[in-house]
Amino acid sequence: MEKEDEKKTEEYKSYVVVHNIAKRHNVGTLARSATAFGVAELILVGRRDFNAFGSHGSTSHMRFRHFHTLSLARTYLKERGCDICGVEITDNAMPVNAHPFRKSTAFLVGNEGTGLSPKESEMCDFFVYIPQYGGGTASLNVTVAASIVLQHFAGFSERTREGNKFIVADKPASTGRKFCAETAESIAEERKLKKESAANGFFSESGSNENPSNLLDSLFDS
Amino acid sequence: MEKEDEKKTEEYKSYVVVHNIAKRHNVGTLARSATAFGVAELILVGRRDFNAFGSHGSTSHMRFRHFHTLSLARTYLKERGCDICGVEITDNAMPVNAHPFRKSTAFLVGNEGTGLSPKESEMCDFFVYIPQYGGGTASLNVTVAASIVLQHFAGFSERTREGNKFIVADKPASTGRKFCAETAESIAEERKLKKESAANGFFSESGSNENPSNLLDSLFDS
Repeated sequence: MEKEDEKKTEEYKSYVVVHNIAKRHNVGTLARSATAFGVAELILVGRRDFNAFGSHGSTSHMRFRHFHTLSLARTYLKERGCDICGVEITDNAMPVNAHPFRKSTAFLVGNEGTGLSPKESEMCDFFVYIPQYGGGTASLNVTVAASIVLQHFAGFSERTREGNKFIVADKPASTGRKFCAETAESIAEERKLKKESAANGFFSESGSNENPSNLLDSLFDS
Repeated sequence: MEKEDEKKTEEYKSYVVVHNIAKRHNVGTLARSATAFGVAELILVGRRDFNAFGSHGSTSHMRFRHFHTLSLARTYLKERGCDICGVEITDNAMPVNAHPFRKSTAFLVGNEGTGLSPKESEMCDFFVYIPQYGGGTASLNVTVAASIVLQHFAGFSERTREGNKFIVADKPASTGRKFCAETAESIAEERKLKKESAANGFFSESGSNENPSNLLDSLFDS
């Protein structure tokens, strides 16, 4: 392997910070996308007395971490050398397909209704938005928006690591159930993470993924 | 404007074909993304005796069209010179970020659980998949997958039209409610399309967006 400069061998990690997403369904879908695009950790900020996410199996491949305040989450991320990137349409926001990333990045997504709060915006180093060609004026679902950003960052990260070649990433294995594959390793890893998450109180131990309780809502509404 | 060849002034349209998506919520979210990325029409295939989508306001910006069979939908799209592209992990599928598009394209997305059926796959000219860097094995929500593909096609289409320059598309207007903007024109257009859709029997006239009826489910489960 030819090493042209340090940068190219460095691995850029991504994080997702969830502060006030109101719908449990959206957190579950976001966790699925985060798993698919190799996000290092999904960081939940707020009270921690909540329960199951209504998650799919893939959710539990994800490493969750919890902080009581945005400020503590910021400190954690800065210690890891992360940029904090708000997904928000601001005057100085950059289009996500321009890949304005420099290093490991934590993505902060806003609430479904109101976007990033002033306090959330303040902790961001920069912002990206998703171009809507053809003068679109339509609303994107918050997890769709976050997923598009994560997919672009994953491509950027891989390209950077491989020295800016165009990379054809491994095709996910098709199992009939598209976009999904289970291997012995992935199942073992899933069990390990499930145990960790349970120890952290992130998931119910009941095993029910369809728990209709609104505990996560109450967390993020607080 | 310099016109280098015919191709560059041609506008490539995109279509989304929905055949057997089981969850109404997913159709609503898909319609929002389709609106955001300038999709020409959302084509529903199957029985038409269904009701409201549980859609957001933006859904009704979308032009819906209905066919009773896949074969009729295919004929309609072929008359318009469309490629039909399956979003599916197949042996010969291309990564979506390689933009393997040639002209106007209709995207056929599979059912949440089982992906494209053999009959659906047969009508596709080619397939794209979403690379999962880092050897991801995770499942993506079907509307997230479709939205990522539509975002890439929108970028391809705009670049082609503008002669392969890197385009910074217009930033969607921020209204506090991120990813969403209403103008007098968009509201007038929305009302017009709502009227059309109602005339087509696509939406209930009750005005309720939270109609819990499962009529769309029954459509796609048939």
